[in-house]
Amino acid sequence: MDGLEVLPVRGIGDVTAGDDLAALITTNAPWLRDGDVLVVTSKIVSKAEGRLVEVPADGPEREEARERALAAETRRVVARRGPTAIVQTHHGFVMAAAGIDASNVDKTHLVLLPADPDASAHALYDALLQRGLRVGVIVSDTMGRAWRNGLTDVALGAAGIEPFRDHRGEIDPYGNELQLTQMAVIDELAAAGELVKGKCDQVPVAVVRGYPGAGTARGAGAVALLRDAASDMFSLGTAEAHAAGLRDAATLPDVAAGTAPAASEAIARALATAAGLLAEGTAVETTPGGLRCSPPDVTAAGLMRFGAQVHSLRAALAAEGLSSTITYDGSTALVTIFAA
Amino acid sequence: MDGLEVLPVRGIGDVTAGDDLAALITTNAPWLRDGDVLVVTSKIVSKAEGRLVEVPADGPEREEARERALAAETRRVVARRGPTAIVQTHHGFVMAAAGIDASNVDKTHLVLLPADPDASAHALYDALLQRGLRVGVIVSDTMGRAWRNGLTDVALGAAGIEPFRDHRGEIDPYGNELQLTQMAVIDELAAAGELVKGKCDQVPVAVVRGYPGAGTARGAGAVALLRDAASDMFSLGTAEAHAAGLRDAATLPDVAAGTAPAASEAIARALATAAGLLAEGTAVETTPGGLRCSPPDVTAAGLMRFGAQVHSLRAALAAEGLSSTITYDGSTALVTIFAA
Repeated sequence: MDGLEVLPVRGIGDVTAGDDLAALITTNAPWLRDGDVLVVTSKIVSKAEGRLVEVPADGPEREEARERALAAETRRVVARRGPTAIVQTHHGFVMAAAGIDASNVDKTHLVLLPADPDASAHALYDALLQRGLRVGVIVSDTMGRAWRNGLTDVALGAAGIEPFRDHRGEIDPYGNELQLTQMAVIDELAAAGELVKGKCDQVPVAVVRGYPGAGTARGAGAVALLRDAASDMFSLGTAEAHAAGLRDAATLPDVAAGTAPAASEAIARALATAAGLLAEGTAVETTPGGLRCSPPDVTAAGLMRFGAQVHSLRAALAAEGLSSTITYDGSTALVTIFAA
Repeated sequence: MDGLEVLPVRGIGDVTAGDDLAALITTNAPWLRDGDVLVVTSKIVSKAEGRLVEVPADGPEREEARERALAAETRRVVARRGPTAIVQTHHGFVMAAAGIDASNVDKTHLVLLPADPDASAHALYDALLQRGLRVGVIVSDTMGRAWRNGLTDVALGAAGIEPFRDHRGEIDPYGNELQLTQMAVIDELAAAGELVKGKCDQVPVAVVRGYPGAGTARGAGAVALLRDAASDMFSLGTAEAHAAGLRDAATLPDVAAGTAPAASEAIARALATAAGLLAEGTAVETTPGGLRCSPPDVTAAGLMRFGAQVHSLRAALAAEGLSSTITYDGSTALVTIFAA
């Protein structure tokens, strides 16, 4: 029957720096054959490549060393809550703790991710090719997801297998052209492999047999799965982005970002946001380039309060994507508004 | 050899409202046996359950009908960019377009997700049990991920299989206790199943054979994979959360949220944010409950500008999680600060 087999590779045992993974795998899986996909846990790749950092076995020094390792592996922090830090690594992966792991290693070391998991996958692909085996190689690791509990294995690196199966442009039986259907098959293969691994059973490699096309071309690598910044709608945690909005409101620039005139609907939405804030009797008049505002009360307190309210209005404009500048004329504030 | 098989179920063909999925599946997979896991594409579940909405085949009316269907299936919008809407459905799933799909259905219908995918899985589990088969059932669908390109299949519903394999508390070969290692195995099984399905090949069901424990207990359902709001660090898109921060800065309440005194480090961070904004000569004096600020210039313009700057300072305090109130005394602003 057509279909896939997912097979554990047992007996690999402990891996240390300098070990030959191709030799270890072929020795323990002599049944490996062309077209198979190897799903190799990144941890043994890291160990073979010596991607370990020494840390104290316990105490506050251990925690400090772990924090240093995290900082070194982090390109930027995405979100933080209590002890959990979601970061983007230098590779571009967004994951908890930069993938640094203290399990399946002695207590005086932490395991980092491979420096270049696609390169690791290619090196193993080449080493197996030299042994006459034409297989796909996936370097996998365990990650959380933004909106789903529990972890799944995904691909950090890949060689000898295309990262996507692309259904775009195919026509379904009803004549509809399929859209937005690029399947991240190397992640699905990594997940399938995980099902026959165990976290403590020392089954760091699985083989998926029967997946079409594996081993025939080098492929674009798992790097193709990294979402670029321009299409990332979740580059910051909600709390972090919200705080950034508050900070940006505190530091509204006095120079406008744009020069194009603002859409009147956006200005109207901002005025609606700010409507309840303006003191009764505040005059807000629409001018060609923005708004002319005057306070109902020109005492010192009234002017300070009015100044705060006009700043609120500018923050509300910024929330609608509009930039603004302000000038004062007597006791009148002139807000000039631009599409940012 | 131990391991898994992932097998396609071919021949199911078109499914329409009222079809008996258990009959269709057992007819086309007479080889099904106890302990197998069925991975059933949600689309055929929806079709069998009549979860379709009628829409015009084309034109702007089609787009309007699709928007109405999306609104009806949406609990809340998480993020929007151009035509892409990431929403949380009434079930709690966070996904693009609420999972509404126009593929593999005639042009006058859209397919909604099953109303209760766990219930759908349980119904199929029960129907198969009545036929003497004790299997796991997963209702799967295709989803995107926040930070990775491409889609993978995950579980919307499950019965007869535990959603997680929990490694917490296990001891690895080095004596480390494993932590944070709840594997979302029903998502991994859904992903494995997808590898033998095709989007247009009408292989809507896959069978995973050899997964331990399947079919023996009803399980907690895929609902266990829904992250609750309290632990959701990405409840809004970055742009949406940032705009909410700006709006909140515009609408800082005049009544403090808390009563506890604020930490002086947080106040210092806010002052650092606002430092460059305050006009030269502005006096900022720390008082027991907050800050006393006085402007260098008590002209009308100077007072309005100062009022805006004090509001900026309050926004900077809010960014540090502090709430504040303001009172005016002559030409002095008293900012009282609380831990929010």
